[in-house]
Amino acid sequence: MDIASVAGLLLAFGLIITAIAIAPGSSFAAFIDYPSLMVVVGGAIAAAMISFPLKTFLGLANVLKKVFLNRIEDIPGLIENIVSLAETARRDGLLALESKVEEIEHPFIVLGIQMAVDGTRPEVIEDVMRTELDAVATRHRDGKSLLDQMGRFAPAFGMIGTLMGLIIMLGNMSDPSSIGAGMAVALITTLYGAIAANVLFLPFAEKLGFINKQELLAMEIIIRGIMAIQTGDNPRVIEQKLNTFLPPKLRAGSQEAA
Amino acid sequence: MDIASVAGLLLAFGLIITAIAIAPGSSFAAFIDYPSLMVVVGGAIAAAMISFPLKTFLGLANVLKKVFLNRIEDIPGLIENIVSLAETARRDGLLALESKVEEIEHPFIVLGIQMAVDGTRPEVIEDVMRTELDAVATRHRDGKSLLDQMGRFAPAFGMIGTLMGLIIMLGNMSDPSSIGAGMAVALITTLYGAIAANVLFLPFAEKLGFINKQELLAMEIIIRGIMAIQTGDNPRVIEQKLNTFLPPKLRAGSQEAA
Amino acid sequence: MDIASVAGLLLAFGLIITAIAIAPGSSFAAFIDYPSLMVVVGGAIAAAMISFPLKTFLGLANVLKKVFLNRIEDIPGLIENIVSLAETARRDGLLALESKVEEIEHPFIVLGIQMAVDGTRPEVIEDVMRTELDAVATRHRDGKSLLDQMGRFAPAFGMIGTLMGLIIMLGNMSDPSSIGAGMAVALITTLYGAIAANVLFLPFAEKLGFINKQELLAMEIIIRGIMAIQTGDNPRVIEQKLNTFLPPKLRAGSQEAA
Amino acid sequence: MDIASVAGLLLAFGLIITAIAIAPGSSFAAFIDYPSLMVVVGGAIAAAMISFPLKTFLGLANVLKKVFLNRIEDIPGLIENIVSLAETARRDGLLALESKVEEIEHPFIVLGIQMAVDGTRPEVIEDVMRTELDAVATRHRDGKSLLDQMGRFAPAFGMIGTLMGLIIMLGNMSDPSSIGAGMAVALITTLYGAIAANVLFLPFAEKLGFINKQELLAMEIIIRGIMAIQTGDNPRVIEQKLNTFLPPKLRAGSQEAA
Amino acid sequence: MDIASVAGLLLAFGLIITAIAIAPGSSFAAFIDYPSLMVVVGGAIAAAMISFPLKTFLGLANVLKKVFLNRIEDIPGLIENIVSLAETARRDGLLALESKVEEIEHPFIVLGIQMAVDGTRPEVIEDVMRTELDAVATRHRDGKSLLDQMGRFAPAFGMIGTLMGLIIMLGNMSDPSSIGAGMAVALITTLYGAIAANVLFLPFAEKLGFINKQELLAMEIIIRGIMAIQTGDNPRVIEQKLNTFLPPKLRAGSQEAA
Repeated sequence: MDIASVAGLLLAFGLIITAIAIAPGSSFAAFIDYPSLMVVVGGAIAAAMISFPLKTFLGLANVLKKVFLNRIEDIPGLIENIVSLAETARRDGLLALESKVEEIEHPFIVLGIQMAVDGTRPEVIEDVMRTELDAVATRHRDGKSLLDQMGRFAPAFGMIGTLMGLIIMLGNMSDPSSIGAGMAVALITTLYGAIAANVLFLPFAEKLGFINKQELLAMEIIIRGIMAIQTGDNPRVIEQKLNTFLPPKLRAGSQEAA
Repeated sequence: MDIASVAGLLLAFGLIITAIAIAPGSSFAAFIDYPSLMVVVGGAIAAAMISFPLKTFLGLANVLKKVFLNRIEDIPGLIENIVSLAETARRDGLLALESKVEEIEHPFIVLGIQMAVDGTRPEVIEDVMRTELDAVATRHRDGKSLLDQMGRFAPAFGMIGTLMGLIIMLGNMSDPSSIGAGMAVALITTLYGAIAANVLFLPFAEKLGFINKQELLAMEIIIRGIMAIQTGDNPRVIEQKLNTFLPPKLRAGSQEAA
Repeated sequence: MDIASVAGLLLAFGLIITAIAIAPGSSFAAFIDYPSLMVVVGGAIAAAMISFPLKTFLGLANVLKKVFLNRIEDIPGLIENIVSLAETARRDGLLALESKVEEIEHPFIVLGIQMAVDGTRPEVIEDVMRTELDAVATRHRDGKSLLDQMGRFAPAFGMIGTLMGLIIMLGNMSDPSSIGAGMAVALITTLYGAIAANVLFLPFAEKLGFINKQELLAMEIIIRGIMAIQTGDNPRVIEQKLNTFLPPKLRAGSQEAA
Repeated sequence: MDIASVAGLLLAFGLIITAIAIAPGSSFAAFIDYPSLMVVVGGAIAAAMISFPLKTFLGLANVLKKVFLNRIEDIPGLIENIVSLAETARRDGLLALESKVEEIEHPFIVLGIQMAVDGTRPEVIEDVMRTELDAVATRHRDGKSLLDQMGRFAPAFGMIGTLMGLIIMLGNMSDPSSIGAGMAVALITTLYGAIAANVLFLPFAEKLGFINKQELLAMEIIIRGIMAIQTGDNPRVIEQKLNTFLPPKLRAGSQEAA
Repeated sequence: MDIASVAGLLLAFGLIITAIAIAPGSSFAAFIDYPSLMVVVGGAIAAAMISFPLKTFLGLANVLKKVFLNRIEDIPGLIENIVSLAETARRDGLLALESKVEEIEHPFIVLGIQMAVDGTRPEVIEDVMRTELDAVATRHRDGKSLLDQMGRFAPAFGMIGTLMGLIIMLGNMSDPSSIGAGMAVALITTLYGAIAANVLFLPFAEKLGFINKQELLAMEIIIRGIMAIQTGDNPRVIEQKLNTFLPPKLRAGSQEAA
């Protein structure tokens, strides 16, 4: 679970709740209005449903899960993994990898090793893996774009709700004492829209961008590694090649030995 | 018919209507103002007429039809189709395709097959098909840009209408009791503009972008397929080539057999 | 004359006038304020004068004329024209084109033919024509940018005028009955700015973009045609080459014959 | 001095002054507020000081001088100049240029000729001149960015000043008669910010962009010219080459002679 | 310490404090509201925590230190340094550099020299250094993006706080005399957000961009220099090569001697 995201969310909502609690003459009840919530959240969801293909929209849950549960790709561990596979392949032949496949967690490595073990031609392996990488990149782009758009639609529906509230209030001015309350309710929708966008959707979209970049880097490293294993490269050379994707501090082996 | 778009629209308008219905002291009549509707919708249409060539503007109806009625291109089915044509061509010769042309639905395949059967030179076939693809891409871009612009002009005319309403109201302040009502009517135009942009034009533009991308992908696959058929490629090889456009899960054949 | 632009303008102003006419308690006089008009139009012009080189700014009249009077380039007719010149050149030699130059309307064809007849070397002809095309493209870009900027400055000066009006009004609050009128006058400037931008400058800029693209396409076709004529290409081949710039439906010749 | 910029500025401020003068119940005193001026101008300057390296910020005066005093590069005259140098070099040898250097105004030509006369190798000359061109381009980009940023900070500080004014005013509501005046003063800061951005900074940035483009074009032409002179090219050929940078109407020589 | 940044900050806050001090009827107390500060600063921090990976967010302190303490890279001094190393290497051999490493301040030169002394192959040296440069560039991009985002979130949370203040105020209108004060407090949050963005985050982001560009230029020069030293290039040639990164005025050696 991503500590920073959770801490950030707790901080944001904690601040808002504290600010309400310490304000003289304020009450939490004044900040809860279900129709406003319905217009902002429902409106953003409706606009996203119209904007995106059904499949992309239904991926929203997965996208959110990913923002919170993202296991940061452990790139140095990944490289170690690939190097260890390369050693096995060098020592005992490509077929020996079959028994090791089960221990591997990353499904993309499994896919590549499986094909290598099956004797698939290198061009075909690379082709299949790159197509998969492209498909993942597209899914990433669509997922981020979904959150970005909801971050744009939420304040828009906040404004729509506030305009509706103002129009209702202005049509009932016979009782001037109710003006303040009506206006307050109208403004809540704008508040909800601003919070939804700036605490949830836009920061989530930003975070998703970072997670996606890391995930694609891992896939790129795996493709390079699998191709090198199949070619029968020396495990040390493979390690050196893959290490260039890392900043020096994090590198497992040392280039100077080369 | 696209379920997500229709459901999204029903949801959006359902939310707005419900929010009005449950608000105390509100009435639907307060939200209907024909001159406001006229300024927003008419204004956005007028601005689009000035902005775009007549032909592009007249394509608006088609663009909207496409957003709702889009049959998602069935890419795997399309590839199967092309492979089956390739098998016929291999078995019975290119001319045998003539009898099969009538069964094909996709007009772009028909165009290509017709030229291949007529013995048109490959370069000319590719040239004609690519020009058609370019023309479709341009038409797509213009269509999306039309919706994007209307999504920008609608709120602008909403603001223009509200300013006009405010100016009229401020000129009639002799009767203070009418101020509330005048202000409400003025705000309705802004509300209409915001709804037109955020429920209709902008989500439609977004959706159109996805539909267009899918359509161009299908055309690209068809071009590759027709060229391969004319060259006399092995149907299995053609299938493999075209399958690289798909994510592995959706692929008809299996690469491992290669 | 461009029907769509004129119809769009009539529609936009018609809507605005109708909306004022049918509003109860409204009068056209309330919407006319010369100082506001002066600030918005004069301000946008002044800002454009500071922003652009004098020559570009003085081209504004031409740019506006072009938006309204644009004769859409008749690309198929243009190709026919070039093919007919190619036939003459093939039959009677390049010099025979001299007598035909007078019949040609498009000055860019005349420029090219004149150089070809004079025996100018092909590289020089292409060079001269491409430089002219680049110069036209730059002029186009500057013209569109001029309208875009005025579409941005007009609302800015609308806001400046409204702020001035509010400041004056707020300094004269001794007579409360005049507040409404003062406020109304202040808002008129914002209204003018919004109309100038959304009915005039921004749609004009958009339209100009389309006209320019078409004009550059015609110039590109002419360059290709003149070069082919000088090389002595077969008129049929020239036609086929130039036709690839057109969508299939509009093509004069038929590729199948090739 | 650039007529258009000066005329535009006079027009803009003339309009604003006239609008104030003819408004009933208005006075110039109502539009002058030194603290507001201080917040807007000082704030934009402070933000620019924080944003830019000291050297870039100190170049602001030069940048402004350039916007007003820009001598439009006389490209045809420049080409004539270079051709005349080429003629001298051809007739009397490269060394003969030494005596002519003093007559040349453009320091960039002097730099190039000096190196050519000194017998510097062509690669080194081009290298030195291109590095200078790159440095000028970077300085240009920074200068334009400085004006652009100030055009963004000025309205932001206008808003900051207005918020400050409103907060002060709202804390002194015991005397309701002063509300109008307080509000007027608060709004003046926003007005100053809008004028600073839309009359000064943003149009200046735009104009600077045009001046810079012209200056870089002149430097490019000079580099080409100097290299050609050193190679000993025929002056007519040099003229022809450099003329391709000009639209046909402005060309000194005639290509047809080639 | 960067004089311009500090002077700019002092100027900005000095202006704001002066403007409050000289305004009649104003007090500093009216501009201090801790809950507002908490919402704006806390909210921007919370949103940044959700948006960025923990590691990037924790780098914020370093980023801010860099904006203030940036020692501008002394490029001419750097080149002199490298040339002096080259002279030693030429005279006494690569190994002689080992004793000089301790005198060098720039850690990136040390890294390169160390590897050269260790006899690492040139390709590996360049590879390691370029990977480091890429890692620094990514860290720079993330750091600037962090400040940019906080410059966007601060005003958003300013608006959220103001909306909350307005809703509380509108719910307590029984005592009309408190309206002014409530409104003033509500506006303070917007003021804080605007100041945080326009005095701190956005100018800092801009400045960081310049510092980063300079730092990457220095690293590029060092890479070129180390590679040339290892190749055993003549120190004069190295100087000439590296000098092309500088505008002529700042160059140590003179090209004419070449």
